[in-house]
Amino acid sequence: MADTKPNAIVAQSGGPTAVINSSACGVIQHAISSGRIGKVLGATNGILGVLKEDLFDISAEKPETIEAMKQTPAAAIGSCRYKLKSLERSKLDYERILDVFKAHNIHYFFYIGGNDSMDTADKVNKLAKDTGCELTCIGVPKTIDNDLACTDHCPGYGSVAKYVAVSAMSAGKDTEALYTTDTCTILEVMGRNAGWIAAAAGLAQRQPQDAPHLIYMPEAVFTFDKLITDVKAVLKEHKRVFIVAGEGLKDENGNYVTADSGDFGKDSFGHAQLGGVAEMLKAVIEKEVGIKARFNKLGTNQRSAMHFASLTDVNEAYLCGQKAVEAALTGENGKMVTLIREDSDQYNCTTGLTPLSEVANGEKKVPLQYINKAGNGITQAMKDYVRPLVQGQAPITIAEDGLPVFMRFDRKPLAKKLAEY
Amino acid sequence: MADTKPNAIVAQSGGPTAVINSSACGVIQHAISSGRIGKVLGATNGILGVLKEDLFDISAEKPETIEAMKQTPAAAIGSCRYKLKSLERSKLDYERILDVFKAHNIHYFFYIGGNDSMDTADKVNKLAKDTGCELTCIGVPKTIDNDLACTDHCPGYGSVAKYVAVSAMSAGKDTEALYTTDTCTILEVMGRNAGWIAAAAGLAQRQPQDAPHLIYMPEAVFTFDKLITDVKAVLKEHKRVFIVAGEGLKDENGNYVTADSGDFGKDSFGHAQLGGVAEMLKAVIEKEVGIKARFNKLGTNQRSAMHFASLTDVNEAYLCGQKAVEAALTGENGKMVTLIREDSDQYNCTTGLTPLSEVANGEKKVPLQYINKAGNGITQAMKDYVRPLVQGQAPITIAEDGLPVFMRFDRKPLAKKLAEY
Repeated sequence: MADTKPNAIVAQSGGPTAVINSSACGVIQHAISSGRIGKVLGATNGILGVLKEDLFDISAEKPETIEAMKQTPAAAIGSCRYKLKSLERSKLDYERILDVFKAHNIHYFFYIGGNDSMDTADKVNKLAKDTGCELTCIGVPKTIDNDLACTDHCPGYGSVAKYVAVSAMSAGKDTEALYTTDTCTILEVMGRNAGWIAAAAGLAQRQPQDAPHLIYMPEAVFTFDKLITDVKAVLKEHKRVFIVAGEGLKDENGNYVTADSGDFGKDSFGHAQLGGVAEMLKAVIEKEVGIKARFNKLGTNQRSAMHFASLTDVNEAYLCGQKAVEAALTGENGKMVTLIREDSDQYNCTTGLTPLSEVANGEKKVPLQYINKAGNGITQAMKDYVRPLVQGQAPITIAEDGLPVFMRFDRKPLAKKLAEY
Repeated sequence: MADTKPNAIVAQSGGPTAVINSSACGVIQHAISSGRIGKVLGATNGILGVLKEDLFDISAEKPETIEAMKQTPAAAIGSCRYKLKSLERSKLDYERILDVFKAHNIHYFFYIGGNDSMDTADKVNKLAKDTGCELTCIGVPKTIDNDLACTDHCPGYGSVAKYVAVSAMSAGKDTEALYTTDTCTILEVMGRNAGWIAAAAGLAQRQPQDAPHLIYMPEAVFTFDKLITDVKAVLKEHKRVFIVAGEGLKDENGNYVTADSGDFGKDSFGHAQLGGVAEMLKAVIEKEVGIKARFNKLGTNQRSAMHFASLTDVNEAYLCGQKAVEAALTGENGKMVTLIREDSDQYNCTTGLTPLSEVANGEKKVPLQYINKAGNGITQAMKDYVRPLVQGQAPITIAEDGLPVFMRFDRKPLAKKLAEY
């Protein structure tokens, strides 16, 4: 009887990416086709949806809607930034999660997210074990920041890398054309503590005169003196300067060079909310070098650019979702799917599994051998690392209005079985 | 004898676009194939290149380099923001231009640019007539701002419209996914005095819940009270709000709501240099509405996004270049090529000619019937206007590194014949 089969839940968490829906699609399609899972439920807005028992039956959505997730950026199930604390401090939350799982006969929890999400999944899983609750938790990696431990790279990174690189390349041509007045352009990209996104922009520089001429990453100490020296040197060589700056640049003491101290200065995970690096660089360059500078801040556009997303990234994201289901159904538990780059001449990527606890709260920064000695650019090794990840154009369907077709779930809410939380 | 044929010069001016090189390509290829023109010379950095006699022989470049201009954004010949004043005030400049033309046997001047450039071309042409200098000046329209008079639309606009619309659509999905914390997103787009670019983003809104929910254009009076009221109303309806803001919003008195008053506060045309609208909106919304807001500022990326450019735009830009040469060779002079939208059910665009003087310093704003009554969005008529302009995907060639192939001229400088200027 179909009704007696255990159900699965899939949830998305943290900052969206161009391919987090591909991962969810991989989970959903393989959970359905396995024949061993009853309903595949979506938790509206990640763990918040679980806590609020705000669930819907994804397996009842139209198959073409589910398939179209592969072409839709952001997080179609809904995401959140709600962070659970330790088992002791957020005990009620964890217990509530298990109550909701029990109430809806959920034996499988697929959580697609970053290190904070893996931490949550790990703790839910531990509590389930401790309380004799039948549950399999498998994590699916996701982050544009590419900073998860234990995996060669993260789904979401290849697409942001591709978009940021083409953006540097294109805006670089603009600066080249108009250097007689608009001499300096600063492209601000995301990456709170890791410079992977900024580093990827370096792929755009095929020849020394190509943008970007300078790349600043949080891993290399940033000073304004250094900036001014760097800018003057590039100007002398190329008459223009194109800079890519990670949002989280830090000084000699490890402090962010800009910090928004307003009411919204920290996100609910306690991370400092950054911004304004490009503006600060612009102001300093205009004042100290005496050239006009302008800045582009791609913001959330860099993580949602399905129209120039990496096919490799979309496919690997889907694969991670598929492998998560396979792992769960073969008895694995408390693991996250990882991406493994085979040691071969041609890029070949397979998947593995690693304990959730090893990923939780880990952070993988850009290694020193990927950053040039001057701390203002990348090395060939970084280019070799990122190049395979941006390959291929993810297909998109264009509607009559000339714009992409994105899906949205019908999202029929599941009847609640528990009291309000 | 080839040497006795008169030469032509082609120059690009003002802010680059995704398709200004397509227009130049149309000029170059048709000037060469006409058999009636000697060399096609490029003026490095627009009129500055003419003044400095900084010219190169484009017709000697590889044909594949010239062909690849159609796939390359920005301004491959080089652009500038140098504005000539009246014939009286900038007399030496105008005379110098004619001296350079005479020295290099230049009888044809093709100037691709906006209204300031058409003004320059018009004045050069008038002085040539007055002084008995043989010269044909034909203008080719170019501006992402879409604010040129006498033409249905401007090459460059369709591509920025397409890119801005897909950016609103994509970042809108991001806001939809993460609305529980990141509730408001502001997308700042270009458009100093005309709201055409902001208006185009409205194409992304297929259903009321889709982004953008609010569009602010310079043509509609902007007040912060109105903003707060608007944001609260959208929040109530959709729990999130996505705003597109033109950079040049103005208050009841016609003053910009933000104005950079620094050293670089004005460009060399005397236009106020704007920026910071999105940041100001963000600050007001966070303080007065109490939700977190973030902003994306596409900057020069919006006008150089060849990777999602409109094929219609590329083709029409090329056509304008071709028609400029045809007009010059059939005895037209002192005209700009215009785009004419045929009055038919299906979009059909032909070209016309209009006197340079009618375009010079004119400005076409978004008409009232394209703006909704509340002054915070667009009407169906605006969607019907812009939809045909974004159709089709301009082809790009992707290199092995996963990024587009852009051309760059070999740019062998022409020997100077005059004294330095």
